[in-house]
Amino acid sequence: MHEFRVWAPAADTVGLATGGSTLPMSPDTGGWWTLTLPDAGHGTEYGFVLDDGSGGPQVLPDPRSRRQPHGVHGLSQVYEHDRYTWNDGGWTGRQLPGSVIYELHVGTFTPGGTFDSAIEKLPYLRDLGVDLVELLPVNTFNGEWNWGYDGVGWHAVQESYGGPDGLKRFVDAAHAHGLGVIIDAVYNHFGPSGAYTPAFGPYLSAGANTWGRSLNLDEADSGEVRAFIIDSALQWLRDYHADGLRLDAVHALVDRGATHLLEELAVEVDALSTAVGRPLSLIAESDLNDARLVTAQEGGGYGLHAQWDDDVHHALHALLTGERQGYYGDFGSPACFAKVWTSAFFHDGTWSSFRRRRHGRPVDTRRIPGHRFVVCLQNHDQIGNRAVGDRLTEVLSPGLLKVGATLLLTSPFTPMLFMGEEFAARTPWQFFTSHPEPELAGAVREGRRAEFAEHGWPPGDVPDPQDPATFERSHLDWSAQDPAMLSVYRSLIALRKRHPALADPRLDLVEVTHDDGVLLIRRGPHVVVANLTGD
Amino acid sequence: MHEFRVWAPAADTVGLATGGSTLPMSPDTGGWWTLTLPDAGHGTEYGFVLDDGSGGPQVLPDPRSRRQPHGVHGLSQVYEHDRYTWNDGGWTGRQLPGSVIYELHVGTFTPGGTFDSAIEKLPYLRDLGVDLVELLPVNTFNGEWNWGYDGVGWHAVQESYGGPDGLKRFVDAAHAHGLGVIIDAVYNHFGPSGAYTPAFGPYLSAGANTWGRSLNLDEADSGEVRAFIIDSALQWLRDYHADGLRLDAVHALVDRGATHLLEELAVEVDALSTAVGRPLSLIAESDLNDARLVTAQEGGGYGLHAQWDDDVHHALHALLTGERQGYYGDFGSPACFAKVWTSAFFHDGTWSSFRRRRHGRPVDTRRIPGHRFVVCLQNHDQIGNRAVGDRLTEVLSPGLLKVGATLLLTSPFTPMLFMGEEFAARTPWQFFTSHPEPELAGAVREGRRAEFAEHGWPPGDVPDPQDPATFERSHLDWSAQDPAMLSVYRSLIALRKRHPALADPRLDLVEVTHDDGVLLIRRGPHVVVANLTGD
Repeated sequence: MHEFRVWAPAADTVGLATGGSTLPMSPDTGGWWTLTLPDAGHGTEYGFVLDDGSGGPQVLPDPRSRRQPHGVHGLSQVYEHDRYTWNDGGWTGRQLPGSVIYELHVGTFTPGGTFDSAIEKLPYLRDLGVDLVELLPVNTFNGEWNWGYDGVGWHAVQESYGGPDGLKRFVDAAHAHGLGVIIDAVYNHFGPSGAYTPAFGPYLSAGANTWGRSLNLDEADSGEVRAFIIDSALQWLRDYHADGLRLDAVHALVDRGATHLLEELAVEVDALSTAVGRPLSLIAESDLNDARLVTAQEGGGYGLHAQWDDDVHHALHALLTGERQGYYGDFGSPACFAKVWTSAFFHDGTWSSFRRRRHGRPVDTRRIPGHRFVVCLQNHDQIGNRAVGDRLTEVLSPGLLKVGATLLLTSPFTPMLFMGEEFAARTPWQFFTSHPEPELAGAVREGRRAEFAEHGWPPGDVPDPQDPATFERSHLDWSAQDPAMLSVYRSLIALRKRHPALADPRLDLVEVTHDDGVLLIRRGPHVVVANLTGD
Repeated sequence: MHEFRVWAPAADTVGLATGGSTLPMSPDTGGWWTLTLPDAGHGTEYGFVLDDGSGGPQVLPDPRSRRQPHGVHGLSQVYEHDRYTWNDGGWTGRQLPGSVIYELHVGTFTPGGTFDSAIEKLPYLRDLGVDLVELLPVNTFNGEWNWGYDGVGWHAVQESYGGPDGLKRFVDAAHAHGLGVIIDAVYNHFGPSGAYTPAFGPYLSAGANTWGRSLNLDEADSGEVRAFIIDSALQWLRDYHADGLRLDAVHALVDRGATHLLEELAVEVDALSTAVGRPLSLIAESDLNDARLVTAQEGGGYGLHAQWDDDVHHALHALLTGERQGYYGDFGSPACFAKVWTSAFFHDGTWSSFRRRRHGRPVDTRRIPGHRFVVCLQNHDQIGNRAVGDRLTEVLSPGLLKVGATLLLTSPFTPMLFMGEEFAARTPWQFFTSHPEPELAGAVREGRRAEFAEHGWPPGDVPDPQDPATFERSHLDWSAQDPAMLSVYRSLIALRKRHPALADPRLDLVEVTHDDGVLLIRRGPHVVVANLTGD
């Protein structure tokens, strides 16, 4: 027996298409429609037919579909979470403070590109010493490969990675290796193809951001849209046993209501954390430089546990590479490094040349610990958003790469590595898509080229996102490891765990001095010395 | 090789007594004295001789002694933490939210009364379903048995329980069973015998509380006293791998400085939690009814993780027993129950008859989750501070005991059981001491009798704390278990974990109604119905 339910507040009729026929659903309260079928259950395929009078009936996937075995355009499938038998009963969670994060993309982390092939690398990650594995989005997207940020099925798992059971096997195995799992979740837009959700109700607002229409978080009927997002988030944490979420680009979540979606989510996640008895971490990607996101609710903040800190990345990147183009313009000096290391943000009310306005707000460094800022030398965005997706290994000497690693792993923040960084991978990580629709494929290709043409890149130099070779090139090459670099990363992570002062999150205790290209960073009884002169 | 160090800011000379001779120590900065001996190390016994001109040299134990093999008056022994090999490398901690706590006293929990005999009960506790074991103080105290609150060696472990290695074996084994360990730590006074610390420096303030002289937290030279306390706390969490501390009677920590000791401790413990990568919980026993203790520092609070909530105990106890004497005077009505269940405190600025003044301050129940309040039907104090140490089993019917258990384990708070409660133990838990000094023994005996005489108890009815039979009587009788009650507790704990709404910490979602002796408590989709009429 299964009760099918769908929110379609404007529909005159809603039909349930299953087993070759379409059955009428009954209206319930609040714009919901329902139908219980005695013979339906785990594995039943179905779709919904909206009769809004605008044309012939089309069978649409369920907005809250838990499984899309035939892709984002196909039928949904009933998936019962309790069919999976978990083996992680002894898992008590993995908190964010003190953790080192390892960011990976399932599709390119291994040659197989699946959860199951990623499982084979878990002993390697455990030996590396990281604590949390952060997966780029695993929700369903159009095509067979994609970074994942164009997700459309926010309650389902991409089939080409292994589907719902595959993700559960991965999380289960990670926990067996003592590793927590963070899932990247995108709630600021739907991908360009396969997003049928807006046909069902007012999921979208009138506004738009870089990637598409914004979600309706504060207009009429937004309550169900907020619930749609929160239920997705809770499902990852509760039913997939994830240990945290990385919330993509929260500055694009436009919510002028008295209680921001993020604050509501933090309250819900605290309640869930209590129910499951494990720490559950919410990490925002934010371009706001506003520590209210990671300030406790009693202090007027949203109560998230951490946020990405791009200023730290930019300070490190510009300092090590000498690059000053685009948003690196204000960064790169030793003084800038000293500021971010002690203040978390460089732009904390200061002039941002790139934005041509003042940006940010100071962090109360006596009350906000550094572990609330996730920092990196490289991540999927900072590599993949370069025209050719080249890593730091293409730009820096091995010596400077090691300087960067040392700074990162002795920082008062939460360090994050991007897959392969630890062995000085030289495989590029390029922007790739696999949209089957020729028109969309062309638009993505041209859009990418136009974007970089503005910065002076000849169109032929920018990889075609739709070319399967672009995806192939981005696969991590495990045969090309630099054992010396791997040993440095392993040693630095071990050192950070052995000496409490190296991970000490108290920003007000950090002291940085610099002189003639040499940085000195006092970390308790230790002094980290970085020679940037190349000598 | 071992470096002996001691803080004795007023001493003219300090000697190190070891191996039958006394060697002069050298003054260091800040009132410290030091001496390094090449042949000393783990197991070396030693003491200090202060020559303050007031009399002959007496060999005193080290205020920061890690081991007192011959009791609190004897020589100290060098104890190196890294001699112990831990087996809990896979332990990622046990957070407080969602946990059920089990409070136990090592000396009376088992017939053996040691850490090692307590280890044998860990499978039982795991099967019961509790998450955190809270040990009454294990620091060194005078004599062979004692509740533990008259500790004098705050950096050492009571030998009769098994000493430092015994505690480590217990914590290690608890972690192997998935159980965290909370240690009760008393920083508000020293016990009446064996506290040599004040001879070394100004550890005490001029003020006093119920139990003795207050600690010097804000007067001249208080910096080293604060460090003495904080280092003790960190040692339990870092070197003994404890998962939290229960801080005894924090209202007796008089600190008028701008940063209260508790806030300073919370910052230090957050840094340590980051270093060890595990949640570390600080739980205050507080009679202040002031949620600032458990409010985040960004909100102007101390940032502790929880506090004991006696109002909840009193509301439950008075409601179930009908007792109204002493501090139960204001409690007992269904309306009082409804208030604490939704507001955490009954006295939140209201008149306290017992205190003859207004008491407390409202909790912001939309921002402070219920898991920050540890609540119970019974605990060591509420049982042991009754004249004859009788449990609820002596006063309530089995039916009402089950009503109490049901209310406790469906509450929005962090529930705590006292050892044996779960099987309806009828063994009393009485106040016992074992001071070897006849004068002190007499004073304790008479003090106890006088205290209860005021409340109308004939002296002969109050057990003699110094009588070994009082200690013997207080041992839990494992042969007298009520299997039906045990089954109820197991089921209720399991139910709380299976249904997220039963542990939901959001106080603003709790609804309580009452009518004719029947309480109805709405917990999400569930309704808890308690019939108090005896029908």
